[in-house]
Amino acid sequence: MKKEINVGLLGAGVVGGGVLIVLEKNADDIAKKVGCPIKVSKILIKSLAETPEEFKGKYDFTENADDILNDPEIDIVIELMGREHPAKEYISQALSNKKSVITANKDVVAKYGAELFALAAENNVDFMFEAAVGGGIPIIRPLKNCLASNKITSILGIINGTTNYMLTKMSKENMSYGDALAEAQAKGYAESDPTADVGGLDAARKIAILASIGFNTRVDLDDVYVEGIDHLELCDIEYARDLGYAIKLLGVAKNHKDNGISAAVYPVMLPLEHPLAAINDVFNAIFVTGDAVGDAMFVGRGAGRLPTASAVCGDVIDVARNIIHNSTGRISCTCFEEKHLCALENIMAPCYMRLHVQDKPGVLAAIAAAFGAQGVSLKNVIQKEVLIKDSTAELVVITHDVSEYNLRMAIQTLKALPAVDEVCSVIRVENQVME
Amino acid sequence: MKKEINVGLLGAGVVGGGVLIVLEKNADDIAKKVGCPIKVSKILIKSLAETPEEFKGKYDFTENADDILNDPEIDIVIELMGREHPAKEYISQALSNKKSVITANKDVVAKYGAELFALAAENNVDFMFEAAVGGGIPIIRPLKNCLASNKITSILGIINGTTNYMLTKMSKENMSYGDALAEAQAKGYAESDPTADVGGLDAARKIAILASIGFNTRVDLDDVYVEGIDHLELCDIEYARDLGYAIKLLGVAKNHKDNGISAAVYPVMLPLEHPLAAINDVFNAIFVTGDAVGDAMFVGRGAGRLPTASAVCGDVIDVARNIIHNSTGRISCTCFEEKHLCALENIMAPCYMRLHVQDKPGVLAAIAAAFGAQGVSLKNVIQKEVLIKDSTAELVVITHDVSEYNLRMAIQTLKALPAVDEVCSVIRVENQVME
Repeated sequence: MKKEINVGLLGAGVVGGGVLIVLEKNADDIAKKVGCPIKVSKILIKSLAETPEEFKGKYDFTENADDILNDPEIDIVIELMGREHPAKEYISQALSNKKSVITANKDVVAKYGAELFALAAENNVDFMFEAAVGGGIPIIRPLKNCLASNKITSILGIINGTTNYMLTKMSKENMSYGDALAEAQAKGYAESDPTADVGGLDAARKIAILASIGFNTRVDLDDVYVEGIDHLELCDIEYARDLGYAIKLLGVAKNHKDNGISAAVYPVMLPLEHPLAAINDVFNAIFVTGDAVGDAMFVGRGAGRLPTASAVCGDVIDVARNIIHNSTGRISCTCFEEKHLCALENIMAPCYMRLHVQDKPGVLAAIAAAFGAQGVSLKNVIQKEVLIKDSTAELVVITHDVSEYNLRMAIQTLKALPAVDEVCSVIRVENQVME
Repeated sequence: MKKEINVGLLGAGVVGGGVLIVLEKNADDIAKKVGCPIKVSKILIKSLAETPEEFKGKYDFTENADDILNDPEIDIVIELMGREHPAKEYISQALSNKKSVITANKDVVAKYGAELFALAAENNVDFMFEAAVGGGIPIIRPLKNCLASNKITSILGIINGTTNYMLTKMSKENMSYGDALAEAQAKGYAESDPTADVGGLDAARKIAILASIGFNTRVDLDDVYVEGIDHLELCDIEYARDLGYAIKLLGVAKNHKDNGISAAVYPVMLPLEHPLAAINDVFNAIFVTGDAVGDAMFVGRGAGRLPTASAVCGDVIDVARNIIHNSTGRISCTCFEEKHLCALENIMAPCYMRLHVQDKPGVLAAIAAAFGAQGVSLKNVIQKEVLIKDSTAELVVITHDVSEYNLRMAIQTLKALPAVDEVCSVIRVENQVME
């Protein structure tokens, strides 16, 4: 039996510091659960001069990654530096040196997961990343273990807290997109360059990871169709509410059976009765549907120092138990399926569309005919008595199920109509509720 | 490397049949995830004459438990017979014979968990029961793994689907208690004798299990204070709604720090903004608070053939991976804390109370004084213009935080007042929302 498990930590920033706090605060309980103490034996920081005050003198800091990556006494390396490089190279080196690796780095997992999993398997060690998706929410391990007997049919996730905060502000306080973004930045939820959040890239990395696990095939970032919330207008959120929907930025991964799988990020109109519609502020939630379990949902904080540390330290405990039982590498990559992507054009969904049209007799008939010509049938039509400018009215429609291909053709046709001034917004609708 | 993992199944009823369906339907994927096929080699049923038609000729059935429990080829025993006996004896025998055991039997786990865990540890095998609480919802494994680095401070659970269905019907359709029960029985959600569900015993077993895991100490069924929904009246649900609350039957486990822990089942008034308030029909949800993760919630189907089978088969995959890696017994009992129960009298909570009082001047003052004498301060007071009978009015109050002791003293005082005809109902209030 080992006397202690030695951990090397790469990065002592927000999350790294959280890991130190949790491992120290709950050290006794963790030791009892694992069977021996967990010791953080070395910490990599950029400059010793910048050693965080709160941890000074309590740990052994170094500026040289090799001190950790090549130390034969270190069993587990936790990578919390962020960004792709040199994080990926350090993870590779640690795995090659037969150390198990834990990371919260979704960029690296989404891009280099296949390579790193192979390296972990080759060296018979663990590679875990519970914190990479959904922060503190247990979702990777439940998918890999608890729900492993299911064929997963769909995963819908609110997996970006920044945009969920902004959409909540827009929806509950009628705040404009710009004001909501400014407030998110003021609160530290959004970075000064918010592109990765509002553009959907952050969520895309996470849904690629979830889809890979859920569908047992390697879904790359390039496979994910991405649309952000930067084009959303407050009036769309208000129309949605009037129609009984909330707008959420979702990661959407679906198994279309014989048509293959798809992964995407885009704003979705969800019925207010859908459990995801009630997830507000910075909270994240992942809604999973499997052929045995039916619908299940996991909710919690998707970011933040201690919630993310909770997930990282859960991985530490899991790996430590594997080390003690000589069973690292117990669960390796489960991407055993050949990838079969469903072409975006073939994906069916109802759709919300807001148009500016001329306020003249016969216009509605012309628009309805344009939809009809593409086989698109309409479920709701609202024409508000809002004059945008002289002789222009605002028209909102929700279609029944339509393929992305037919939808695009319909939009082209509409744009060519003299009666249509502008197709202002197009938002997909998800009508499924919890079953 | 093993060629296959052999499973013996005790019971082929609703859930047992579900396990057979899932293991067969997804056999290929499961074999790839585990590393070798899972084979159900023998099934115990009461009488061969009653072999379920759907499985006839496909499996080897027996009426003799020893054919499974003593078969050296069988690696895993799944117990799905229900009730305490002989399930507990069969589980013991299997563990003693060095077979890992998986069960969905909350009665056995709640009552004999300590003994069975010790036996599993002694024989270095696994004892798993993900399906015993929350059906298909991953909750046991997330508590034991993903959230293991947290000190859990509270667990609130909607863990009985029958009563949640009834409360939903009462709340959404203004159905009476009796009608809601009749409908639950007609739909097969409630048994002909519904006592264990509506009286809270079923939920009590589950919260005892969750509290034991969450607080790392053995919480017995006797430690759980139990109150069901059988005394709830429709008007309480209506008052609650008017005041911005939903009434849910909750399992409530709390860590009161130096005052010890508590576990209870009772109806709770939850603010409508609380995520648990939106969990309706037969759905279950467990709301966990930890010192690192903050609040997290797990939602899904708490019962039913395939959802429960999903949890059981997840355990099968986990145990099978342990068998292949020679690491059964990897996680054993984590009840290493000495039990320190918080006396019910010391537990603080706000409280809703409905009274029938005489409709005379000075009565409200007398009642307020009676509360005040016990140090109970009032947050809301509603006197409806509903005359119950001549000169009697209905009064509803919500108190600020009050200890159970002071509450009981106040009720005694109130009952002794000539102006008070009846204390009709007392319901605890939970004001915490997601943080």
